Amino acid sequence: MSDIDIEQYKITEEPFYQPSGNEIDQYEAAYAARLPVMVKGPTGCGKSRFIEYMAWKLGKPIITVACNEDMTAADLVGRYLLDADGTRWLDGPLTTAARIGAICYLDEVVEARQDTTVVIHPLTDHRRTLPLDKKGEVVKAHEDFQLVISYNPGYQSLMKDLKQSTKQRFVGMDFDYVPADLETRIVAEETGIDAGTAARLVQVGEAARNLKGHGLDEGISTRLLVYAASLISKGISPRDAARMAMVRPITDDFDIRDTLDNAIDAVFTEGS
Amino acid sequence: MSDIDIEQYKITEEPFYQPSGNEIDQYEAAYAARLPVMVKGPTGCGKSRFIEYMAWKLGKPIITVACNEDMTAADLVGRYLLDADGTRWLDGPLTTAARIGAICYLDEVVEARQDTTVVIHPLTDHRRTLPLDKKGEVVKAHEDFQLVISYNPGYQSLMKDLKQSTKQRFVGMDFDYVPADLETRIVAEETGIDAGTAARLVQVGEAARNLKGHGLDEGISTRLLVYAASLISKGISPRDAARMAMVRPITDDFDIRDTLDNAIDAVFTEGS
Amino acid sequence: MSDIDIEQYKITEEPFYQPSGNEIDQYEAAYAARLPVMVKGPTGCGKSRFIEYMAWKLGKPIITVACNEDMTAADLVGRYLLDADGTRWLDGPLTTAARIGAICYLDEVVEARQDTTVVIHPLTDHRRTLPLDKKGEVVKAHEDFQLVISYNPGYQSLMKDLKQSTKQRFVGMDFDYVPADLETRIVAEETGIDAGTAARLVQVGEAARNLKGHGLDEGISTRLLVYAASLISKGISPRDAARMAMVRPITDDFDIRDTLDNAIDAVFTEGS
Amino acid sequence: MSDIDIEQYKITEEPFYQPSGNEIDQYEAAYAARLPVMVKGPTGCGKSRFIEYMAWKLGKPIITVACNEDMTAADLVGRYLLDADGTRWLDGPLTTAARIGAICYLDEVVEARQDTTVVIHPLTDHRRTLPLDKKGEVVKAHEDFQLVISYNPGYQSLMKDLKQSTKQRFVGMDFDYVPADLETRIVAEETGIDAGTAARLVQVGEAARNLKGHGLDEGISTRLLVYAASLISKGISPRDAARMAMVRPITDDFDIRDTLDNAIDAVFTEGS
Amino acid sequence: MSDIDIEQYKITEEPFYQPSGNEIDQYEAAYAARLPVMVKGPTGCGKSRFIEYMAWKLGKPIITVACNEDMTAADLVGRYLLDADGTRWLDGPLTTAARIGAICYLDEVVEARQDTTVVIHPLTDHRRTLPLDKKGEVVKAHEDFQLVISYNPGYQSLMKDLKQSTKQRFVGMDFDYVPADLETRIVAEETGIDAGTAARLVQVGEAARNLKGHGLDEGISTRLLVYAASLISKGISPRDAARMAMVRPITDDFDIRDTLDNAIDAVFTEGS
Amino acid sequence: MSDIDIEQYKITEEPFYQPSGNEIDQYEAAYAARLPVMVKGPTGCGKSRFIEYMAWKLGKPIITVACNEDMTAADLVGRYLLDADGTRWLDGPLTTAARIGAICYLDEVVEARQDTTVVIHPLTDHRRTLPLDKKGEVVKAHEDFQLVISYNPGYQSLMKDLKQSTKQRFVGMDFDYVPADLETRIVAEETGIDAGTAARLVQVGEAARNLKGHGLDEGISTRLLVYAASLISKGISPRDAARMAMVRPITDDFDIRDTLDNAIDAVFTEGS
Repeated sequence: MSDIDIEQYKITEEPFYQPSGNEIDQYEAAYAARLPVMVKGPTGCGKSRFIEYMAWKLGKPIITVACNEDMTAADLVGRYLLDADGTRWLDGPLTTAARIGAICYLDEVVEARQDTTVVIHPLTDHRRTLPLDKKGEVVKAHEDFQLVISYNPGYQSLMKDLKQSTKQRFVGMDFDYVPADLETRIVAEETGIDAGTAARLVQVGEAARNLKGHGLDEGISTRLLVYAASLISKGISPRDAARMAMVRPITDDFDIRDTLDNAIDAVFTEGS
Repeated sequence: MSDIDIEQYKITEEPFYQPSGNEIDQYEAAYAARLPVMVKGPTGCGKSRFIEYMAWKLGKPIITVACNEDMTAADLVGRYLLDADGTRWLDGPLTTAARIGAICYLDEVVEARQDTTVVIHPLTDHRRTLPLDKKGEVVKAHEDFQLVISYNPGYQSLMKDLKQSTKQRFVGMDFDYVPADLETRIVAEETGIDAGTAARLVQVGEAARNLKGHGLDEGISTRLLVYAASLISKGISPRDAARMAMVRPITDDFDIRDTLDNAIDAVFTEGS
Repeated sequence: MSDIDIEQYKITEEPFYQPSGNEIDQYEAAYAARLPVMVKGPTGCGKSRFIEYMAWKLGKPIITVACNEDMTAADLVGRYLLDADGTRWLDGPLTTAARIGAICYLDEVVEARQDTTVVIHPLTDHRRTLPLDKKGEVVKAHEDFQLVISYNPGYQSLMKDLKQSTKQRFVGMDFDYVPADLETRIVAEETGIDAGTAARLVQVGEAARNLKGHGLDEGISTRLLVYAASLISKGISPRDAARMAMVRPITDDFDIRDTLDNAIDAVFTEGS
Repeated sequence: MSDIDIEQYKITEEPFYQPSGNEIDQYEAAYAARLPVMVKGPTGCGKSRFIEYMAWKLGKPIITVACNEDMTAADLVGRYLLDADGTRWLDGPLTTAARIGAICYLDEVVEARQDTTVVIHPLTDHRRTLPLDKKGEVVKAHEDFQLVISYNPGYQSLMKDLKQSTKQRFVGMDFDYVPADLETRIVAEETGIDAGTAARLVQVGEAARNLKGHGLDEGISTRLLVYAASLISKGISPRDAARMAMVRPITDDFDIRDTLDNAIDAVFTEGS
Repeated sequence: MSDIDIEQYKITEEPFYQPSGNEIDQYEAAYAARLPVMVKGPTGCGKSRFIEYMAWKLGKPIITVACNEDMTAADLVGRYLLDADGTRWLDGPLTTAARIGAICYLDEVVEARQDTTVVIHPLTDHRRTLPLDKKGEVVKAHEDFQLVISYNPGYQSLMKDLKQSTKQRFVGMDFDYVPADLETRIVAEETGIDAGTAARLVQVGEAARNLKGHGLDEGISTRLLVYAASLISKGISPRDAARMAMVRPITDDFDIRDTLDNAIDAVFTEGS
Repeated sequence: MSDIDIEQYKITEEPFYQPSGNEIDQYEAAYAARLPVMVKGPTGCGKSRFIEYMAWKLGKPIITVACNEDMTAADLVGRYLLDADGTRWLDGPLTTAARIGAICYLDEVVEARQDTTVVIHPLTDHRRTLPLDKKGEVVKAHEDFQLVISYNPGYQSLMKDLKQSTKQRFVGMDFDYVPADLETRIVAEETGIDAGTAARLVQVGEAARNLKGHGLDEGISTRLLVYAASLISKGISPRDAARMAMVRPITDDFDIRDTLDNAIDAVFTEGS
């Protein structure tokens, strides 16, 4: 353990985060009781940034794992590596987090194989332990350790969902896109464009979000609005920037593209 | 074997457990005859804690394995590791338990590949042996060794179930949620909130359990009630706490959420 | 070969076995001609014990392999292990049995991958050899070697069955549950309970076996009757013991449970 | 190559083989032209023994590979093994056969992964070479080398069949069960039972073969008749022996069993 | 890092590229803001060449990865290799690009396993980091690093598409076949054939593109026109060259072949 | 590279090849422009031999790879091997061909996993490079290097076909069975039988080819005619030889067999 560089897991600069409710108090209470937290909400609504912000606010290290279907339990827990002197155990990110008392953030956990997720069970009940079966060691979690997972309700299918026995180990917090005025402020502040143009981009974004379920699988994230604003700030016309950032990447359906392009033209009619 | 730290598998502190029937006598009889035990019941009703409690009561070490679909027979039995001096055999948790005379608790065994479970067969009949085919050794189980598995009847599907030839190697013990008054006591004692609030949380929990089969796959576990109580004890309002712990994690269905939120509002009408 | 401990594969104590027909003569004739044997019958009717008994009676070592879906040909035949001096060949259980002249008993062979089973072919015809392709060696079977497989006809599906070219390498022997009076004797002798209670347990068992195909996939094995008797001998009431050992492990269907519980109550009406 | 023990692949004793047509001349012509041969026919009709017999008659070594679904191209061709001095190449059986000029007999080749079989292509056309891609060597086949595969037409399904581009590299030879009088002679000579009993066993076998397609997937092989005769020679009654060897292993269907058992009783009515 | 040869990733010669719109300005703006870029369009319309051209124009190294279904996260990120002194970490192409500040171009990214693509997420948001979980290192991307992916909208099926949470990390740029006059110029300049013949080949190409959706899955790429022109320049007749390059490779449908062959004959009627 | 034996890849003897059109000129033009070539046609019509002939005519080395479903990109490109001094890179056949300037012939490329084939993309466009991602090297192809693939249009299914983005990197050349008189000459010259018998075999072959699509998946290749002629030259009667080589290997359908056998009898009525 002496060779883990804890500092690299600390957030040194305050992440830009605008609260839109009492989510900070709720998270602090959950952390105070060391309850595992599940943050829920659509793509790009700020879940990951919120957790980073809380890690910064609480002054705790954070270890983020982008989950994927090929992730095995060993990728979380650790494995033996072959070394000059034979095999050497290498802790996985979950084990490291449990040892050093970090917040372990499993992003899009539902992508991982459903049954791989059972390895987090003993860390999320009264035991707060992580058995390393292959090493013959039972790790007791550091008192600062907390587990956080993200979950996008729009994605889940019958084939891919968390098991009830996993879900019932978390308290849940809902997230959604921020209100228009706050989003306008974020877009303008992050990119330096004027508030009027930012407001127009937010207008387009809201129009697109209304198409969710009517041809679009997901709404448009704040990130794409910031992308459009960045392009504008680099000299691209607002109409082109909005097309590049808010239409082209998300759909190839001609009708949807038309609808969105028209919305952009309507919003940026003149002189924007 | 001289290098196994048996003490780490002993339960040193009495786990909090409230018996709700004659399950302790039944388990002691099964253990006295060294019969393999299958504990059955819904998620979070206390199966795992009961086994831990019995291990503590009997003064036996316990080795818990959270089973998962990727678990191979080698994960239970052991494997060769590459070492500075060539390969070295490493006992798996099942083998360790058989050698040191521990209770081996295979949690959610049905998650493991159906046919992987046949490795437990020779340990569960008159032979009480575990052949390590790859090592060319036949381990005779320690006289204190016992095998326990958990099983959630609500989960099993046609694809995933134990084979009859496995089932018929166990005696079965049913578990269910504890009665309301006992649950109220548990919630209050574990978190320090007042009995009135605890009783209200239990009321909400029972309402939710009635939705099982009508939109909810599982009832709400006692653990989630304790989570809600913990949040309350950290300053979150009962309504918010109940939503966070007892609604958000378990369902994304709008109607069910409404029903549960209304139940929470009704129970915590005023001043709770 | 000098380092194989043959003694560990010998049955030193006579296994408890009650013949129910001329199966002993039949097996001895098959062994005398070194014909491969397939023992068929439902779960828990005593197939494995019979083979152990015969191994003891014939004074031959026996090597049992519990087959499973993940078993590869290498698990039976052997593989190279990495050693301090490079790779070293390690015989699998089938190869060991062929070398030392043991009875090799492949339990539930149909669980193994269908095509893995072709490795036994050259051992089961006039060649009586086992080619170790990866080692470049052809093992001639010891003259005492015999292959035995078990097979549960109730299990086979279209997806999982032995190929005809495999089946036609064996002589078959049918097994079934033993008659009531013999089963009563077994239950009583193995656990020490009185013959009356044993007879009642057998009565319940037969009732349950009549439900096979009407809600139960399999009948109740003698083993479960012995379990119930063991619990009784440890102080559990007959009704509870019968429920624990003969109902709870085998079904979660409410109607079947009711039927069986009623049968238990009816049999153990008074004073049992 | 100096370390290959060619003698172990030679058939030293004349295998018992009774020709039933001009198959010996046909095979000798195919071998003289070094044409690859495909032997076709039902399970247990003597395909493998014929090839062994021809290898003996031609005085050529033979290397038999029992193909299976898990067999990879490397299992046929060879692979690198880790050694004290790094990796060492180990020829597979096909490569060995090509080098030493053996007959390579791929038994039930269709079991192997369809596309694995393409590795035999360059050995079966004018090139007569085997490229060892991983070793960077192209093996020119020894002039005595010949490839033989067996194929059971009754088995092939849409999922498992040889590709036309593979089939069109072989000349084909059909095999079937031998005629009754020849089969009677084989059964009697191989086991020492009297010709009358042997004839009766053959009668039962023919009855069973008529059930092929009407409840039986395959006819009964001569091997099973020999098994029955062996049991008789060890003292089992003809009726029991025929049941054990010719009914029990091949079917669990009650009606088919009845039909076959009745046929046995009818044939062995009295004094047999 | 000192051992990476950056120069090999630099484009030293100006790639031949004819802009057909304001795509160069758009890309420069995206690069200036270091936004991840998704280039979309049909096979062979010049996406890859455009990115190479931009890398040359910006004077940045470029690392191209041809994605495929077997590509694992480790293929992008890196892995441990066994070395004389034990294991040694080897950066994958994505990691190398992040370290040296290259443009990383993931060609046909949708071919990679959907969930493998999540490893690019932390590189494509405000974090611009790449966690090497297995190495316990978090790589901060070089300030010149940019991620580009290509995407062919005609290919995507329900089974294979990027997740919305991946798509919403990119700005999109559409590409299509170039206009006829520009294409004629490209074909003539690249191969040295006369403009008249080049124009006729372009005419055939446009006829074929009109068949897209009516028997052809894709239009004919400019590359195939250049192939035909190359064959002509080597002495093949235009009709034969057009057939070889623009018909034979793309379809085996007799009707489509006829239609295209007729189109070729019509275009090259006389004296071409 | 100094250790590659280029000579082993050279064709030293002129392969027997009879041109049936202007395919030699076409191939030479494609090679002169170094265009990748796709040779298309049914099984056994001479595609592979044509490529060998061209390699001999052009005096270039040729590396042939028989593709199969288990072939990974590493099998083409190369991999690290464990050596006494750690890992050592071993070029795959495609890499070797690119380095030494060989014609690389991927036989039945469509058998390889569809997405594995993307590794050939950078070798087949203006780049003519092969990135060895795992080695961190970009191989520039030797100026003599050319890629050739074979493709059997009759085989392709919806599941297995080349992607358009792969197809559009090749010029295509169609092949088919040679005309009757040419085929007669080939059969006679290759085996030494008289022209009359050869002509009769060709007659049978053409009858069989007419059954394609009416019970036969493929026509009969010239190779099978040569096989039949070989058997005749070794003393087998023409009728038997034709049955063995041209009927038995290709079909088990009784009706088709009858039709073909009758055709053979009709053709070889008397004195042949």
